[in-house]
Formats: sequence, structure tokens, C-alpha cells
Amino acid sequence: MTEPAPHAAVEAADIDAAARVVAPFAVRTPLLSFPVLNERVGTKVFLKPEMLQRTGSFKFRGAFNKLSSIPLDSRSGGVVAFSSGNHAQGVAAAAQILNMQATIVMPKDSPLTKRERTKAYGAEVVLYANGIAAKRGATLVRPYDDPFVIAGQGTAGREIAEDMMALGLSPDIVIAPASGGGLIAGVATAVKAKFPQAQVIVAEPEGYDDHGLSLRAGHREAHHAAGRTICDALMAQIPGEMTFSINSKLLAKGVTASDAEVGAAVAFAYRELKLVVEPGGAVGLAALLAGRIDVKGKNVVIVLSGGNVDADLFAKLVA
Amino acid sequence: MTEPAPHAAVEAADIDAAARVVAPFAVRTPLLSFPVLNERVGTKVFLKPEMLQRTGSFKFRGAFNKLSSIPLDSRSGGVVAFSSGNHAQGVAAAAQILNMQATIVMPKDSPLTKRERTKAYGAEVVLYANGIAAKRGATLVRPYDDPFVIAGQGTAGREIAEDMMALGLSPDIVIAPASGGGLIAGVATAVKAKFPQAQVIVAEPEGYDDHGLSLRAGHREAHHAAGRTICDALMAQIPGEMTFSINSKLLAKGVTASDAEVGAAVAFAYRELKLVVEPGGAVGLAALLAGRIDVKGKNVVIVLSGGNVDADLFAKLVA
Repeated sequence: MTEPAPHAAVEAADIDAAARVVAPFAVRTPLLSFPVLNERVGTKVFLKPEMLQRTGSFKFRGAFNKLSSIPLDSRSGGVVAFSSGNHAQGVAAAAQILNMQATIVMPKDSPLTKRERTKAYGAEVVLYANGIAAKRGATLVRPYDDPFVIAGQGTAGREIAEDMMALGLSPDIVIAPASGGGLIAGVATAVKAKFPQAQVIVAEPEGYDDHGLSLRAGHREAHHAAGRTICDALMAQIPGEMTFSINSKLLAKGVTASDAEVGAAVAFAYRELKLVVEPGGAVGLAALLAGRIDVKGKNVVIVLSGGNVDADLFAKLVA
Repeated sequence: MTEPAPHAAVEAADIDAAARVVAPFAVRTPLLSFPVLNERVGTKVFLKPEMLQRTGSFKFRGAFNKLSSIPLDSRSGGVVAFSSGNHAQGVAAAAQILNMQATIVMPKDSPLTKRERTKAYGAEVVLYANGIAAKRGATLVRPYDDPFVIAGQGTAGREIAEDMMALGLSPDIVIAPASGGGLIAGVATAVKAKFPQAQVIVAEPEGYDDHGLSLRAGHREAHHAAGRTICDALMAQIPGEMTFSINSKLLAKGVTASDAEVGAAVAFAYRELKLVVEPGGAVGLAALLAGRIDVKGKNVVIVLSGGNVDADLFAKLVA
């Protein structure tokens, strides 16, 4: 099993390297703007639509970068990952491209769409954990506490920085969701390398705000939620060690949105933006639309992190 | 009333002029590619997602260009348009920006979403025709048989040509839907000015193939359909005179897709592309996915023309 060193720093140069690795296979997603959104919130908003990424979420970036880092003589054992769905698809799709075997351990209550899509990429899906990594000599692909995964996710932030520079604009505020914190750690690293003044804000579901709590406390704290949120992708209980070592230095603060506000943002994206966003992918947009962030006169970038949502839930949210 | 001269030609220079007029207000939509689609059809496909355009369809381009062409001393009478919904929204939004009064005459069975959105742009919506244009001295904004409208829609084709050049690629096949034929006339004019070898193909709902019939006959022919199609945006009975004078010279041929194939394409776009496409906007994608076009080894561009679809129909199609 390949074990990353704990607290390994990820720097902008690691993200540059990741960008070279993933470029031939990842989608370079555009930076989108919508008059209807700008008028609604009264400022310039740019969306990074990672639901347009291969597999329907940003997770392919980190997974492909990580799998590509596995030495050739360690690849025959395949990879194993634990995931509720988007990391699962990212790992499965990366393994398929690299001709590796993938075993994905998913919770039984993960969304059907995510389970089916993971199988469609040729992965073996098992619905509970059972020492599989050790048994098969497979490489464990962690969802966030891995420098290659963080650097891979950071390529989304690198593209944001490039596209804002091409527009001649500075991002004043960059908002991304967090579960374990890999996406926002990578995005913050890449964006702040080019725009040190940018405020990077983590968006979380109400009650599942372990990053917000931890940022305020100055150390990792678990959230207190016991039930469920519609944001199935954002249910990690505590920030990652490695991701928090980065995020505690780079993030400005946390904001939250309720399930109802997230549902309203999914419906807004359907109706006005014509984009399919899953609940966990819409939490930053939800916080913006709910007026939780002072954006007046600022250039705002929001990462919409994925779009894998069961059709029946989507229909209910947009009705 | 401003009456365009019949059979006025639209040339690439008119589209360049339109691009300058619409640029400050229209969205410059990106050209998207998706590994999942390329792998499915075995070639390189690029999508022009006009559902991301202001008002949710390409129609804003032509409407804004047309309204901007109305002399200042004729603007006080406002504008009137007849439309099932997308042209309605385009005209209403353009009128709102230009501080003109818009009256839109819509059929009673037009989609609810389209009627509500048209009202939201400040237009007066009336559900039947009654000599309104003459009575109020308003300028009639035709949906397609107008050189300013065709030139405005052509700005989408101009962007396609620019983006393909930036990628260092030639579009071998460009597919767009047609109702009256304004979009495809403008797109063909702009694309073929830069890529004369490109084959421009018109996509229509099965039975509503008046452009296909007319291209084969060499003169304008009405389609024979009596019922309805889910492609509410594509129900014009006969190609426009002005648009056909352009399309008969520039288009390679017509293809069709059944309502079931269009529904499958809407579901594919939801599930795999994470884009909300309305049925009429998906007919080119539907023809591609149904294998109606020989695309092997070719660079294919498809215009997805809009995304204004009632939530209950969308839910039914993606279920």
C-alpha cells in the first residue's frame, strides 16, 4: 500500500506537475458567467462547472493524478477506494484509462446513480469494507489526504487563475465546498499562488460545518450532525489532517447553507443556468443566493463541484 | 413598421457587425467537449451550448441585434413578436435592456416556463393575435425572416469558427436545428466563410422536416405533420423565404430524429453532460446518438439551441 507522508505540503509547483499529467484526459472546464446571476446578486460571478468534468465531478482530476503516480511495478495489485460516489467514479475512470483493476467500497445508502456509474467504468463495487486493500495488495486511493490527490484537484484552481488572468480580472472571493477538504486545499493553493489577496471561503451544509468549526477553533474539530443532509458528497465528519494543514493557513472562513437553500440553488441552476448540479456541488451557490456572503463590488468565483444526482431527487428539487 | 427587404442576403460581414452589437450583452458561450460523448460516437464532437445564453436560448442574439437596428425615433412604439417561447424571451430581454416596450403574442399551448419567463423580462404577453402591431405602431420583430435576426443568430456560428480555429481544428460537420431556419442560416454563413468545406446539416423532428423536404425539392415545401412533437420550438410549417434563400445554397442536407430519440438525447445530456437541453434544442444530438449521420473520423460540431423546458416534462424525460 502506498502511504503518503502525513502533513506533506502541496505547493503550486505540484499542481503545475499535476496539470501536465491530467491534461490529456481531463476536461478543461470553462469559466462561465451568467447575466441572470450577476443581476441577482449585484456583482460579477464566475462559475467553475466541474459537473462538466469527466465522470461528472472534479474527483477525476485527483484520482488520475494519484493513479499515475503509482510505480508501474505496483500497478498489478490494482487500487481500492472508499467513497460515497464521486471519488468512486473518479478512481474507476482513472483505473480504466490506466488499465488497472479498481475495487470500490461504497456505503449501501450511496446514490444509485453513483453506484451504477462507478460500475459502468469497469470497477468492482462492494457495499461494505472488509480488509480488501490488504488482502489484494491493492493501493489505497484516499479521497483527500494525499498530496497527489490534492494537487490533482488543484488543477481546477489553476484553471480558474488562468482564466481570470485572461479576463484581466482578480478573483476577490473564491468559494468551494468541502467534505474532507481536498478540493478546496488544492484550489486555495493554486489560486493564492497567483492572487495572494483572494479570500478563499469553504461552503458546507448546515450542521456539517466541520471545516468552519475547525477554522474558528484553530484545530481539527468534528461536526455534530447526527442525521443526513441532501449533500451526500459532503458528509465527512472531520477535516483531513493533511488538507487541514493547508486549509488552516489559506482559508478565510466558512459559510453554510441549509438543505432547503441547497435545494433552491439546484432549482435555480436548472431553471436559470441550465446546469445539472448535485446538492453537494451547489452549496457554495446556495450560500451566495441566500445572502450569506458579502460580495458587493467583488469578483466572485464559485466552484460547482459535481452533477451526479439521482433523477428522482433532481425532479423533486426542480419541481 | 420596419419591413426588411425580401431575400436580402446576409453575409459574413453582417455577422461581424452583429457580433460587435451583441457582445456587451450576450454571453460568449464556450465550445464544450465531453470524453463520454466522443467515446460513444467514436469521433471528436464539440457542443455549442446555447442554453447557457442569456434567456436560455440563442434567440437573444438575433433579437438584440434586430432591436438595436431600430432607429431611435421609431422605438417609442415598442416591439411586437409572435412566438411559442424562445424568440419571445429573446425579444423581451432585448427590449428590457434597450428600454423598449415589448408585446409578445404567444399560443395558448406554449410551455408554461416560456410564458412565465417572457413575462419576467417585463413583456406584455397576450395569448392570441389581434392586429396589435398595426394598432400600436410597434415594430414587428420576425423570428427568422429578417437580416438582422439572421446576422444575430450567426454570431453563434462565428464563435464556433473562432473556437475551432483556436483549437487548430476544422469542423467537418456542423449540425443545428431549424424551425424557420434563422439560426442555421446565420451559422452556415459564418462557419462557411471560414471553413468553406464544412458540411452544414439541418436537424429536424421526424415529420416536421420542412427544411429537409425543401432542400431535396429545391424549393420551399411545407411539412405534412398534423399533430404535435415534443420539440415545441421547431414547429414552423415551412422554411422562411429569406432563410431558405441562404440555406438552399449553404446546407448539405437534412436529418431527423423521432420524439423518442429526442427524449433519449435530453436524458443523455442530463445524465452524462449535466446540461439542461430542451427537446427542440436536442434534435441534432438525438440524430447523432441515433446513428443518423456518418461522422467517422470527422470533427463534428452540434448546436444545442436552448434549454427552456417545463420541469414536469424534463422529469419525465430523464426518469
